[in-house]
Amino acid sequence: MTLKLYCFGESGNAYKAALTLELSGLAWEAVYVDFFGGEARSDAFKSNVNAMGEVPALVDTDHDYTITQSGAIQDYVVHLSQKLTGSTPEERREVLRWVLWDNHKLSSVAGPTRFLMNFLPEDKRPKEVIAFHQGRLKAAYAVLNDHLADKNWIVGNAITVADISCCGYLFYPEPFGFDRADWPHIDAWLTRIEQTPGWKHPYDLMPGSPADRA
Amino acid sequence: MTLKLYCFGESGNAYKAALTLELSGLAWEAVYVDFFGGEARSDAFKSNVNAMGEVPALVDTDHDYTITQSGAIQDYVVHLSQKLTGSTPEERREVLRWVLWDNHKLSSVAGPTRFLMNFLPEDKRPKEVIAFHQGRLKAAYAVLNDHLADKNWIVGNAITVADISCCGYLFYPEPFGFDRADWPHIDAWLTRIEQTPGWKHPYDLMPGSPADRA
Repeated sequence: MTLKLYCFGESGNAYKAALTLELSGLAWEAVYVDFFGGEARSDAFKSNVNAMGEVPALVDTDHDYTITQSGAIQDYVVHLSQKLTGSTPEERREVLRWVLWDNHKLSSVAGPTRFLMNFLPEDKRPKEVIAFHQGRLKAAYAVLNDHLADKNWIVGNAITVADISCCGYLFYPEPFGFDRADWPHIDAWLTRIEQTPGWKHPYDLMPGSPADRA
Repeated sequence: MTLKLYCFGESGNAYKAALTLELSGLAWEAVYVDFFGGEARSDAFKSNVNAMGEVPALVDTDHDYTITQSGAIQDYVVHLSQKLTGSTPEERREVLRWVLWDNHKLSSVAGPTRFLMNFLPEDKRPKEVIAFHQGRLKAAYAVLNDHLADKNWIVGNAITVADISCCGYLFYPEPFGFDRADWPHIDAWLTRIEQTPGWKHPYDLMPGSPADRA
């Protein structure tokens, strides 16, 4: 089986797919996409990989199958590996619930906020937008922190793609208004993820980082 | 079976769950949540219905089961009814992909934008945030419009929960920067949804509307 993940280090959404692949035990390889050079929005990329013009995209060359959206890639990796999901139908729906929550409330806000605060020139950073997003994020961190107050993992007794989805942006060093010290239950859970055998930091797991462009 | 959906008319996320229930043919009833009066954020609601303090929430009283997040509710309704999903595993993953895309790119931006533009006092509407969100939404409408250029439905040959998710905010009359006339393929697809037997407008399907508070 040949699984190729189109990704770049700075993308927390790509990290969710990459970490899911890595922890699943399946063999996979990263294909670097020069996002900051415009590659994801090129006609070639849109025609051949993802019409939405985004990473991550997973290509299973053996099955001539391409799938995009981090949560759908996670679903395919779970399908192939039978790992990293709940152990009952109810647990699997609970995993889906948190993946959806992450997509709706956490990553979809954290990603743009981190982009605006770090990857735009300083004089082009929209202060009102950043402040608004940080307010929404604070509410999301509170929901996640409360949920983890009496749990090791988001669903059930082991790491699932729900954990991997929700942590997508939380290991990055660039500031976007998240400080682990403010959220003790999130902090302890991130430490548990870091201690999971096979875990890697996004900049170690995928090609490309701000250091390469410095 | 008794399915109770906690909802209110103005919520496009609740509409996704309500329309899925209605088109599934299952019996269900709406339980009005006074969102604008703060009910969803009350301790009672958080303790008894949804710790996240949001609608929609679906309670299946026969199975003592509660599920939240519109996409997870849709998954449960599909599980119960075996309707409104793809006909193969690949189609079902494609449905999931578009539900995730909607949660990440469309509804999660359209909802707050509509709120800021219509349900806040005029002097408290953050112009820069609204403009930023409308820019993101325009990119999302373009993706959806292009996808629908040669298709009747988002996935396969019939309406699925992917269609119901993506249309969640698009029937509302309050302005948020979406005009059907600008996006002909979206417009034709919305007409197909409206013509689906059983379809109802959000303010006809769920209790509560701006008219009630006028």
